[in-house]
Amino acid sequence: MDTSIKDHEIFSPDAVVGAFVNPASVAVIGASSDARRIGGRPIAWMRKAGYKGMVYPINPNRDEIQGYTCYPNVAALPQVPEAAIIALPFKHVAPALTELGEKGTKAVIIFSAGFAEVDENGAQAQAELVAIAREYGMRLIGPNSVGVYNASIGWYGSFAGAFESGWPLAGNIGIVSQSGAFGSHLVTLARNSGLGMPLGLMTGNEADLSVGELIGWLAHHDPVKVIAVYLEGIKDGASLVAGLKAARDAGKPVIVMKVGRSEVGSEAAQSHTASIAGDDAVFSTVLAECGALRAYSAQELLDMAHVASHGIFPQDNTLGVISISGGAGILISDAAADHGMEMPPLPQNTQEELREILPFAACRNPVDCTAHIINEPGLLSKFLSGMMRGGNYGSVICFFAQSAASPGFDTVLRDEILAMRRQYPQSLFALVATVPRESADRYEAGGVPVFDDPTRAVTAMAAISRYRSLMPKAGASALLAGGETVSLPAQATSEAEAKRILADYGLPIVQERTCNTPDDAVAAAESLGFPVVMKILSPDILHKSEIGGVILNVRTAAEARQAFETLLERARQSAPAARIEGVLVAQQIENGIECIAGITQDPIFGPVAMFGLGGIYTEILNDVVLRRCPFDEQQALAMIRSIKAKAILEGARGRPPADIEAAAQLLSRLSKFAVSAGKQLKSLDLNPVALLPKGKGAVILDAIIEVSE
Amino acid sequence: MDTSIKDHEIFSPDAVVGAFVNPASVAVIGASSDARRIGGRPIAWMRKAGYKGMVYPINPNRDEIQGYTCYPNVAALPQVPEAAIIALPFKHVAPALTELGEKGTKAVIIFSAGFAEVDENGAQAQAELVAIAREYGMRLIGPNSVGVYNASIGWYGSFAGAFESGWPLAGNIGIVSQSGAFGSHLVTLARNSGLGMPLGLMTGNEADLSVGELIGWLAHHDPVKVIAVYLEGIKDGASLVAGLKAARDAGKPVIVMKVGRSEVGSEAAQSHTASIAGDDAVFSTVLAECGALRAYSAQELLDMAHVASHGIFPQDNTLGVISISGGAGILISDAAADHGMEMPPLPQNTQEELREILPFAACRNPVDCTAHIINEPGLLSKFLSGMMRGGNYGSVICFFAQSAASPGFDTVLRDEILAMRRQYPQSLFALVATVPRESADRYEAGGVPVFDDPTRAVTAMAAISRYRSLMPKAGASALLAGGETVSLPAQATSEAEAKRILADYGLPIVQERTCNTPDDAVAAAESLGFPVVMKILSPDILHKSEIGGVILNVRTAAEARQAFETLLERARQSAPAARIEGVLVAQQIENGIECIAGITQDPIFGPVAMFGLGGIYTEILNDVVLRRCPFDEQQALAMIRSIKAKAILEGARGRPPADIEAAAQLLSRLSKFAVSAGKQLKSLDLNPVALLPKGKGAVILDAIIEVSE
Repeated sequence: MDTSIKDHEIFSPDAVVGAFVNPASVAVIGASSDARRIGGRPIAWMRKAGYKGMVYPINPNRDEIQGYTCYPNVAALPQVPEAAIIALPFKHVAPALTELGEKGTKAVIIFSAGFAEVDENGAQAQAELVAIAREYGMRLIGPNSVGVYNASIGWYGSFAGAFESGWPLAGNIGIVSQSGAFGSHLVTLARNSGLGMPLGLMTGNEADLSVGELIGWLAHHDPVKVIAVYLEGIKDGASLVAGLKAARDAGKPVIVMKVGRSEVGSEAAQSHTASIAGDDAVFSTVLAECGALRAYSAQELLDMAHVASHGIFPQDNTLGVISISGGAGILISDAAADHGMEMPPLPQNTQEELREILPFAACRNPVDCTAHIINEPGLLSKFLSGMMRGGNYGSVICFFAQSAASPGFDTVLRDEILAMRRQYPQSLFALVATVPRESADRYEAGGVPVFDDPTRAVTAMAAISRYRSLMPKAGASALLAGGETVSLPAQATSEAEAKRILADYGLPIVQERTCNTPDDAVAAAESLGFPVVMKILSPDILHKSEIGGVILNVRTAAEARQAFETLLERARQSAPAARIEGVLVAQQIENGIECIAGITQDPIFGPVAMFGLGGIYTEILNDVVLRRCPFDEQQALAMIRSIKAKAILEGARGRPPADIEAAAQLLSRLSKFAVSAGKQLKSLDLNPVALLPKGKGAVILDAIIEVSE
Repeated sequence: MDTSIKDHEIFSPDAVVGAFVNPASVAVIGASSDARRIGGRPIAWMRKAGYKGMVYPINPNRDEIQGYTCYPNVAALPQVPEAAIIALPFKHVAPALTELGEKGTKAVIIFSAGFAEVDENGAQAQAELVAIAREYGMRLIGPNSVGVYNASIGWYGSFAGAFESGWPLAGNIGIVSQSGAFGSHLVTLARNSGLGMPLGLMTGNEADLSVGELIGWLAHHDPVKVIAVYLEGIKDGASLVAGLKAARDAGKPVIVMKVGRSEVGSEAAQSHTASIAGDDAVFSTVLAECGALRAYSAQELLDMAHVASHGIFPQDNTLGVISISGGAGILISDAAADHGMEMPPLPQNTQEELREILPFAACRNPVDCTAHIINEPGLLSKFLSGMMRGGNYGSVICFFAQSAASPGFDTVLRDEILAMRRQYPQSLFALVATVPRESADRYEAGGVPVFDDPTRAVTAMAAISRYRSLMPKAGASALLAGGETVSLPAQATSEAEAKRILADYGLPIVQERTCNTPDDAVAAAESLGFPVVMKILSPDILHKSEIGGVILNVRTAAEARQAFETLLERARQSAPAARIEGVLVAQQIENGIECIAGITQDPIFGPVAMFGLGGIYTEILNDVVLRRCPFDEQQALAMIRSIKAKAILEGARGRPPADIEAAAQLLSRLSKFAVSAGKQLKSLDLNPVALLPKGKGAVILDAIIEVSE
């Protein structure tokens, strides 16, 4: 059931979405005088927050609501409201929406619940809302949304509980959340931790506007520089990908928290959002592909947004640490290792310089200038500048604990760190300390985030340090799988047919022949060259080796003749009903590393390619890598290099290095095949692929294609 | 260089350690009028905090310091101070300590630095301090310690920066920290987060009193119920184990954060603490063995201590979740899976009961009672009691975000949760919400910890839920490896000798004979039964298979004769200088699973046993399990069952289940062998051990013993 509006040609979506964020006027349908009710809250908040636009309460039973003139219905309004809120019981929503359509309002937020989140009737009612919106060229947020807010203009088209305790702070972080309750919690946490998140869009059921479209819109909305996203399920993979890529191209980091990773969580998510959680590993690879960062807790999401809000994205993932506590330096080193940050030591001469300044200091990295620095704050600038000159670190953590609040030392420390930050504008500096709010604010104003927990600082900085590495490499080829088409048979394919289809698409298949007589087999083996592998060929026998249907090491004509008979005999005995299409005689490939590659259809993101080493590496280690199709050879190469066992491909244990380039070529080509084949391709399994030594290529030895029937 | 005092018979350590925590009088040697100096800070703080004991500043240049009468030296004091602080420059420390010894003071805190943390001279000076202490029966904390505090009596024998911004809060958490700077940071963070940590001991260089001894002392100190520990290196493994076990036996959870896990961190730790970081995996297993919990960040340490401070340790690791946000329920489910908490669904009838109360609610677990509950708070008690009646969860998380502060709803929610907590005193309840401090305090007073981040709540609760499972099982045998002795040869052993030593200790060795002639070999093979394995036997050939020195599948007398000659010939060619002790003829064991077992000497904790499956499982997967020796068969069984690949032992892939009991018996016996052999045993490697099908035993096929020379 696809209830979303795909056909936006009627009007510029930007202008309409803009009305959700910055409306000049708003009608509240179902307005209430009671500021605790959902039809009363937005009015009370807009009034209190000084919203300058026109507020039009609509309620047939009132003349005035909370000081605003109240209207009996939409038609009676003196002007067309740019935006509207519907806070009516379920059954009144559709008529109100029609009224708004007639009036000419284009941006409608629907608070009301009882739609697709409840049952099939609700889903039908929701589809009806979409049909009305489409008819009048309206866009919808919701239903079942707690609304949107833009604190910079006092616009609270929302009944989220977050605003009961205060307004969001000024800043450059925007949030898009599917959940109202959890989104509201995030907004509260952000304010409580001093984080500026003045713009929020809670999408609810996403009948129309999706998280992806809103991310895409924020990509072009100047005041927002960092986009925090909370997801429970994905309704539309394509719009999410488009939105994330738009934000990436605009240089705005998107930090995504998606729940439902675990079995219990995923079950709960499916019953809660009525959408499929999807494969979490696929989701992670799609985020990386689109240059988005992933957070795994509310705290991580906010910490990462906090660091990102300073707009500094280091060129590499190196970390320098300066501390007054050896222990903190060690702890930070451990956390850096956990998060894949590198901590190169300072050059020897820098270490010696620093040791001359302070003989007891540890000067390698982490640098421990000891509590002595508090008595001689003049040494600080020497330490900081020595570290940056010598190490030129992408990120720097300064651990000064409570001494950063120590009278006399506090201002010297702040001046020095802020000066260094100005001198090295490409590097990300953070302070870990317990300082009063106003001191923290000054660091923050100077571009230096402040944390009190060192591990939190590392976790967030490590993520932000990865941001640049996710940007597309210069020269990455534009990928258009179009033009080529693949036609798959309507039903299950035999091995030989699958291989023929793949070979036709230019994929490297082992040389082989289908043979119907012992003489054919001998001729084939002699033409391919001994030794050969011989296999029974039947669409009805999927697991050939279980019935002894594969014979290796056939070395002579006599053996080939014998093997032909043996295979037929085994098939007759084990699978008397199977249709036998002959015997496959294939080159026996030696010195190859067994790999597997394949395609699955993700319900959200379409065809996804998989690569791994065979056997225990996939079955027990689960050491496989995934990527959404299509992708080019460079991207395939990066994929292959990201498996844990890549040392085996690079020549560990005395083996020659494998032809990784050939594997990348195969994999990229396979990804384009998957796109060309379309949804009819249910799955594709190449197991094994023999990866030969460098320069010798890669060869597909076996292939299974499943088609959707 | 062992500078610690081991010989404590002279006096009761408890009484002296008590003087560090609760002294009736204190001398401050090197006292200063300047409250910013280390000799001035403790005096200023004790004065300000209302310490009731006598304070005796000692400084030859003053008559009065900060309002207290000042004395020129220790001898001039009107009484023997129970405790003393030495805050003098390096070279004056030893004379001052002697003066204190002469006077009769037994508890001395040494702030002064420049000792073992600096260089070899410092280490010698530190050894001298220990000698003085031993002579006079004194105990030392430090040197290079920021001191100790006991906020409940205003005792601040410390110059830690933490107290510049306020006093620790009342509570039942004590902290023992090696680091002064980081310990002080933890104390500050605890106070800032509302956590009561009124007692702290910062050990510095641990010339005498170690972290382990202080944990052991706190185990018997009533006001402390939870012990937080920060470690950088371990000077004395035995005292740490004893301290942890004392706390375990006293029912007080110990939560340990140890840094130096990573390569960079471990290097930094070794240069910082002049002690060996040790193997981190061994450290983790020792903690588990001693019933201690491990934290990996400052925040985790404090969060775990926070939850533990309520004294509720669930019987199991089940988690029930009730929330007003479906998303939060999903997020919590994900975090629970990450941390190994189980979330069993509510029974069907309970689900139906709840659904009748509120049709839109999700009632499985996580339970989502939706924001509707705020409008109908009367339903809360039905939901909570239904959940507990139906699920009887060990832990319960209640996610109510900002609605827990919503006027009208807030008090109902608190009353209901606290009532449920009283009704189920064995279960651990936590609230996740953003509430004002005073509301949080009321929850906390009622035994319900409050978090604002759901993932942090799960992380801490999961750890505390594990606490009971670490307690020794009833009937666990007391382990005394004493009585038996093992004498190892002075030099490297041959395979046959190693096996003989192990067989003498009762370990199951494959049946085999050493043969010196082809006839011997034939006779041996016939007596053992064909097929046999034959190997060259030489103390100079460690890697036999590399020279073709192992022949498998010897099936007849003629083959045995031939194999004998072949082995000697290969040895002559490949290793002409090797001493040949003959040829080993051994039973060929079939149907065994290859395992490896071994012993290494941990520099801190002594002999450590290792077990794993062989080959790729150890080499690539690193799927091995460790345990400090000795241990009994039950503990060995638990060890074996904790490997990731245990499914293979239990009969995966169509194999018969392996004789895990026999492996446990072997491993436990091996652990006692290691203790009996003592430090002379450098390492022991049983590779492979053949683990036969259930009931058939385990057999050691090869053994290498390395001895310390």
